[in-house]
Amino acid sequence: MIRERTIAWSDPKLTADASRGMSGLAFLRGMRDGSVPGAPIAALVGLSIDAVEEGRVVMRLTPAEYHYNPIGTMHGGILATLLDSVMGCAVHARLPEGRAYTSLEIKVNYVRAVTVASGELSAEGNAVHVGRRSAVAEGKVLDAKGRLCAAASTTCLVFDLPVE
Amino acid sequence: MIRERTIAWSDPKLTADASRGMSGLAFLRGMRDGSVPGAPIAALVGLSIDAVEEGRVVMRLTPAEYHYNPIGTMHGGILATLLDSVMGCAVHARLPEGRAYTSLEIKVNYVRAVTVASGELSAEGNAVHVGRRSAVAEGKVLDAKGRLCAAASTTCLVFDLPVE
Amino acid sequence: MIRERTIAWSDPKLTADASRGMSGLAFLRGMRDGSVPGAPIAALVGLSIDAVEEGRVVMRLTPAEYHYNPIGTMHGGILATLLDSVMGCAVHARLPEGRAYTSLEIKVNYVRAVTVASGELSAEGNAVHVGRRSAVAEGKVLDAKGRLCAAASTTCLVFDLPVE
Amino acid sequence: MIRERTIAWSDPKLTADASRGMSGLAFLRGMRDGSVPGAPIAALVGLSIDAVEEGRVVMRLTPAEYHYNPIGTMHGGILATLLDSVMGCAVHARLPEGRAYTSLEIKVNYVRAVTVASGELSAEGNAVHVGRRSAVAEGKVLDAKGRLCAAASTTCLVFDLPVE
Repeated sequence: MIRERTIAWSDPKLTADASRGMSGLAFLRGMRDGSVPGAPIAALVGLSIDAVEEGRVVMRLTPAEYHYNPIGTMHGGILATLLDSVMGCAVHARLPEGRAYTSLEIKVNYVRAVTVASGELSAEGNAVHVGRRSAVAEGKVLDAKGRLCAAASTTCLVFDLPVE
Repeated sequence: MIRERTIAWSDPKLTADASRGMSGLAFLRGMRDGSVPGAPIAALVGLSIDAVEEGRVVMRLTPAEYHYNPIGTMHGGILATLLDSVMGCAVHARLPEGRAYTSLEIKVNYVRAVTVASGELSAEGNAVHVGRRSAVAEGKVLDAKGRLCAAASTTCLVFDLPVE
Repeated sequence: MIRERTIAWSDPKLTADASRGMSGLAFLRGMRDGSVPGAPIAALVGLSIDAVEEGRVVMRLTPAEYHYNPIGTMHGGILATLLDSVMGCAVHARLPEGRAYTSLEIKVNYVRAVTVASGELSAEGNAVHVGRRSAVAEGKVLDAKGRLCAAASTTCLVFDLPVE
Repeated sequence: MIRERTIAWSDPKLTADASRGMSGLAFLRGMRDGSVPGAPIAALVGLSIDAVEEGRVVMRLTPAEYHYNPIGTMHGGILATLLDSVMGCAVHARLPEGRAYTSLEIKVNYVRAVTVASGELSAEGNAVHVGRRSAVAEGKVLDAKGRLCAAASTTCLVFDLPVE
């Protein structure tokens, strides 16, 4: 039996352009509240922004069959996507207008297999250092029972946006 | 303007069950050739298996707008998904029937931003060590011009499947 | 002007043999208290064990000129040595007699350059998951003013010691 | 029975000052040939520079008892020190005078336990990307029989030295 799912998204240029005209905090809260169009990746994998504070972001994602790998569990890349999102956004949520970031690397430790039985996942990212040229953030994913599923760290480059 | 995309996949239980009844090499070649149903993740992110040899797997993925993050490039999690796939499968392609693996961790270095202008990506995973209890693999993603976009490493646990 | 330093250590076989006859907690506390001979690495780099609890270990190290790299700061490998020690020992401190571990990988984020002006470093390792076959731990290094210098994670293999 | 070892090193300020007045390639070859004083870390852990080319550095280290951890093998931090050195220096060997680097993170996969029976280790670092603001390098350690002991990757920040 074949399963189907249709996703819809907005022009990502609108989102990216908005990111350049406001602080990270305002931008991320705009996406959460719907005043800024969400990124396509959020529609693709089914993630939503829950909380946004300076240096801290929480997102949610409900495991589904369409996340599965060949060996019958949620693909690790979905957890990496979730963690990359909360950690990168946690750094972004520390940057004023005119500053931007890009991820240089990410490392994820997979602690517990995730399936549809895990229930809604909650992912939290925290910026542990935001310097002039680089930043470091950490992240964790918990299942619906609060058990640790994955832990991660990331290094970001931070820089001034070119003046237009 | 809203964009839409519909994906379709098969029951992942069929794929996972097949994985337990054959060698990794036969299983992965079966998925590539269509005799084994592909995993849902492949449909979700748009990846396809190209080459499968003992300890080496190549996959392809064409960057699309639905992969985009809030800052206007392919989300790093998609590259992580692609790399986790080729590296995990490279280890799997060294395992005989009755043996299985699970990823313990993955680390990805992002070297070059990927957009729809990058053209079709090619990802290669190589098992550099497959021991009795653990394995290590490395992976790289190149764009259509052969430029390095990301490099990664992974640690897997390898173990005997329980006899049923 | 040439500087010199003489280090002294005991036969590491004595330490390793002791590790196989007691729980991780008893072994590590024995090294801290001097009833078990310390490992040569501790003498080499100048680290000492401060606190040992189930799944948590704290060590100290005072930066010195002999730790310096070619560009005039403490070599990152010394921080990696310190973090590998507190994280591996944090896992060990959760293992009963008859169980052992080995590190599969370590990742370190360097947040702040360390010099002799940093004062005594304090490193803490915490086991975030100890399973039947693998374990994950995290670690941090702070300088004498409590500022984060480095953060790390590790994956360990855990297994039964062969019965002799 | 107590073992002893005495190490000697030069003022690290001389080495660091030299690094700022020449290209990375000239600096590293100077350390190899003895015209630039070696870093203290090289004396501490016993590493020597073997080959230096643009973006590629090879070092050697002979495992000794003083490298041992509490469980009777070479401490992973020594392998991390060796890998951090060859990878950082491989990046440095691509930088002209007036440019500098610092390591942001390192990840090491431990593949094979190292002991004094491993014989002389050979470590090679290769810069896989050197950009305007960041760089990525990879490294491997082989034992005397050419067997892989450890594999690693690093991210570096690269920047202009302040004009004095």
